[in-house]
Amino acid sequence: MPEPWPTAITKIEPNRVAVRGYDIADLMGRASFGEAVHLLLTGDLPDPAVGRLIDAILVSSVDHGATPPSALAARTVASTGASLSQAVAAGVLAINESHGGAIEGCAHALSRVIEIARLEGDVLDAAARVIDEYKADGRRIPGFGHRLHTADPRTARLFALANEADLYEEADATPTALDAARALERAFAQRGKAFPINVDGAIAAVLLDLGYDPGVMNGLFIIARSAGLVAHAREEQTRMPRMRRIDPVNHTYDGPPDRRLER
Amino acid sequence: MPEPWPTAITKIEPNRVAVRGYDIADLMGRASFGEAVHLLLTGDLPDPAVGRLIDAILVSSVDHGATPPSALAARTVASTGASLSQAVAAGVLAINESHGGAIEGCAHALSRVIEIARLEGDVLDAAARVIDEYKADGRRIPGFGHRLHTADPRTARLFALANEADLYEEADATPTALDAARALERAFAQRGKAFPINVDGAIAAVLLDLGYDPGVMNGLFIIARSAGLVAHAREEQTRMPRMRRIDPVNHTYDGPPDRRLER
Amino acid sequence: MPEPWPTAITKIEPNRVAVRGYDIADLMGRASFGEAVHLLLTGDLPDPAVGRLIDAILVSSVDHGATPPSALAARTVASTGASLSQAVAAGVLAINESHGGAIEGCAHALSRVIEIARLEGDVLDAAARVIDEYKADGRRIPGFGHRLHTADPRTARLFALANEADLYEEADATPTALDAARALERAFAQRGKAFPINVDGAIAAVLLDLGYDPGVMNGLFIIARSAGLVAHAREEQTRMPRMRRIDPVNHTYDGPPDRRLER
Amino acid sequence: MPEPWPTAITKIEPNRVAVRGYDIADLMGRASFGEAVHLLLTGDLPDPAVGRLIDAILVSSVDHGATPPSALAARTVASTGASLSQAVAAGVLAINESHGGAIEGCAHALSRVIEIARLEGDVLDAAARVIDEYKADGRRIPGFGHRLHTADPRTARLFALANEADLYEEADATPTALDAARALERAFAQRGKAFPINVDGAIAAVLLDLGYDPGVMNGLFIIARSAGLVAHAREEQTRMPRMRRIDPVNHTYDGPPDRRLER
Repeated sequence: MPEPWPTAITKIEPNRVAVRGYDIADLMGRASFGEAVHLLLTGDLPDPAVGRLIDAILVSSVDHGATPPSALAARTVASTGASLSQAVAAGVLAINESHGGAIEGCAHALSRVIEIARLEGDVLDAAARVIDEYKADGRRIPGFGHRLHTADPRTARLFALANEADLYEEADATPTALDAARALERAFAQRGKAFPINVDGAIAAVLLDLGYDPGVMNGLFIIARSAGLVAHAREEQTRMPRMRRIDPVNHTYDGPPDRRLER
Repeated sequence: MPEPWPTAITKIEPNRVAVRGYDIADLMGRASFGEAVHLLLTGDLPDPAVGRLIDAILVSSVDHGATPPSALAARTVASTGASLSQAVAAGVLAINESHGGAIEGCAHALSRVIEIARLEGDVLDAAARVIDEYKADGRRIPGFGHRLHTADPRTARLFALANEADLYEEADATPTALDAARALERAFAQRGKAFPINVDGAIAAVLLDLGYDPGVMNGLFIIARSAGLVAHAREEQTRMPRMRRIDPVNHTYDGPPDRRLER
Repeated sequence: MPEPWPTAITKIEPNRVAVRGYDIADLMGRASFGEAVHLLLTGDLPDPAVGRLIDAILVSSVDHGATPPSALAARTVASTGASLSQAVAAGVLAINESHGGAIEGCAHALSRVIEIARLEGDVLDAAARVIDEYKADGRRIPGFGHRLHTADPRTARLFALANEADLYEEADATPTALDAARALERAFAQRGKAFPINVDGAIAAVLLDLGYDPGVMNGLFIIARSAGLVAHAREEQTRMPRMRRIDPVNHTYDGPPDRRLER
Repeated sequence: MPEPWPTAITKIEPNRVAVRGYDIADLMGRASFGEAVHLLLTGDLPDPAVGRLIDAILVSSVDHGATPPSALAARTVASTGASLSQAVAAGVLAINESHGGAIEGCAHALSRVIEIARLEGDVLDAAARVIDEYKADGRRIPGFGHRLHTADPRTARLFALANEADLYEEADATPTALDAARALERAFAQRGKAFPINVDGAIAAVLLDLGYDPGVMNGLFIIARSAGLVAHAREEQTRMPRMRRIDPVNHTYDGPPDRRLER
């Protein structure tokens, strides 16, 4: 018998399923889904305030309408008579460097700013140097600017929630990823470019300051967006004719009218 | 220009993304991920107590260790050098009738019990008849009994949370799916069979009583388990050698020791 | 150590790979790909004439332009920065009941005609009865009629090749699937409907007469079309900008002009 | 109306489907599947000898038993009740850098040897330098050596067929990829290492000498192996119990005994 191979995620015993040491039956009703995701991906159960921040990140990415490639791929596959899991899997396959990948890409740029600033002292100088490095490679820094959303309220909201979570009270590392993000905005502005940080960049900064591995950040987007993909695949299955031509632009929203959240 | 095609899920405008009428920036920090999922899948924002119930259902399904086919498929693909989304998609493809599908399957059986009971009056008689119908078709009723978990604490916990949410205070429909589930347990017991409802069956009963379409229930499992699949795929990418033979049985847990949730 | 599990497909030994008993190194250059596919899927190496027929079936399904859902799904995923295998997998996920599935669907209808004709004698009566059965279920018989191709030359070509292969010389079973297909055409015509058998129906008839299991027929389409999906995914990767909106209708062909095969 | 987007692969008109300019109905029965694949992937219909070479390459990769990750992923998904396309898609997702990717990887190394040799004259020196370059990067050159097959008859067979196809009669480019492959073998030998070219390396050399883009070579493997994946998925669906634990090592072959190809 060869050595058993190890995993540090979940222990299964009769009548007990424990994620990272915590019994799932105990977590149910006491930990939010965001806390459970944080526990799974980082190994630690966060305090509720950080849990709310993770929930907010998941909610921010839960759907972006019918035109992202993931929604179109899921609908295209659903329109052939596919099962729900088959359609959702096709949608997940569209989450890559150019769709959902800006979070990880931005985290790498922020890490590089932090690395240089720690060695050489000034975060604004470091940001300028990273912009030059990317330019020399012919690459754009992901997470700044947006085609459609020029002042995305999701970004402001996320930073406000990060403050409420005291994420930056306890920050002992200097500069933080948030400092690096702000420095990049200023360095862009000094070159006459208005590239405000967008929601992907904001998520990258917050997750980096929370200690997330950049290589798993795309996973958070996959988890969140899988909810939107289920909704699109199911709507396609139940409301639309099979094998229709799905126009990627010419569609209209006919759901509930705008309504305010009274909380 | 042909007619635009309709979708009732999300409206995208510059600087505004609204799911089922609610601005996502408003939802962030004010609605939990479970509430956002409920909003996406049913069209309505639930009250927080129901949101906690959805969160509890998502938490209950977040992972089940390394041996379910979805985890093995995700790891097998990750071990070839695949990206995270590629590995997770392979895992999602394994969520089907025999894995994750018991929720939808049980919901159909519970619906059938309710349908007969409404016509003919007695829920226990209806349950007995549904057991006979399945038997005549050579099928088992999904959601009852479990190979490994004979007294799954997740089941009891979910029903307790459903009670806390006053889900059954307001129930005007009679019998509820929970009544149907209990009737099936009793009808099995009358035949000398101990087939207690398992966690999949409990989820089916609660979701049916919350008004969910059985055809979307598998989607809730996909959303929840995508978190576990990200964790397994990333652990495989970062901790294990490429192209290893992944034994589906002979493995060991080496994560954090058992710890209590102090809340 | 538990019992080893059995497979009847391929035996691997040092310096020898044998498919259904034949050394692959011997097959290379001596058996066509069509013969190898037939060997894999049925267990027997066909004579070269049948091999040419399988090759012709594979060639007939190799691509159908940019608008089938499989090509659109593969391109949509490729446009996000996906790898080739990731894009092709998304395309394969779109091969289902409504796309590629007509072959298997038609084979079931032809089998039903044969079954009735063997019991009751007349194939035309049997065909009429099967049309009625499908109508009563609210279903159309797949493999007859076509939205775009009213007189598909691929159909005539395939039946001509089947004759050349003496497929119907040796036919001892009566009626053949080809007989059943012709009977269905006549039965439709008697009701005033011009539903000629299409290329999917012709493939179904030939494969059924060759002894294929209907449940594997979709697989032949998957194998053939994977070639087209590779071509579309690679063209998208190398020729088109990332994240473009892929219109499912409004496109143009700019490849080599029409050219004749001089053979 | 925006500009139509261009594709150079297939033109669809009523009653005519033309791949790269050739009517598919004309190709059926006159061009082999290998020729059709070459036409799709390179844009040109090859002469029959080159077509046989492509067929031989496809046949060489058609299956490698039950233990490669692609077969295991397809079987794992099939065991949950998945459809054929769903199971095959999961298998395709496992074809990546470490599984099937050696062909493209080797092609890059051979191209580098050719590039240096053209600049500096001697192919053996160029091979030695490329080995040093890979070593400095901590990488192995793919396509040389094999864990299981030390003298793979598929390799010798493929080179023999390439000679029969007069592939190297007409070679005007010097050195060829085959020259580069032989030079790498000698350069390894001079360092005391027996790393003979394996079947992946041989395929890479032949495809490179046929003018294939290295970025599409993985696609040829996907096309070929999709046949094996269909066979494994269908065997799992029809012969094995649902949700079984699929041991990646402990299995046995119980198909037809060894048989000789009499041709």
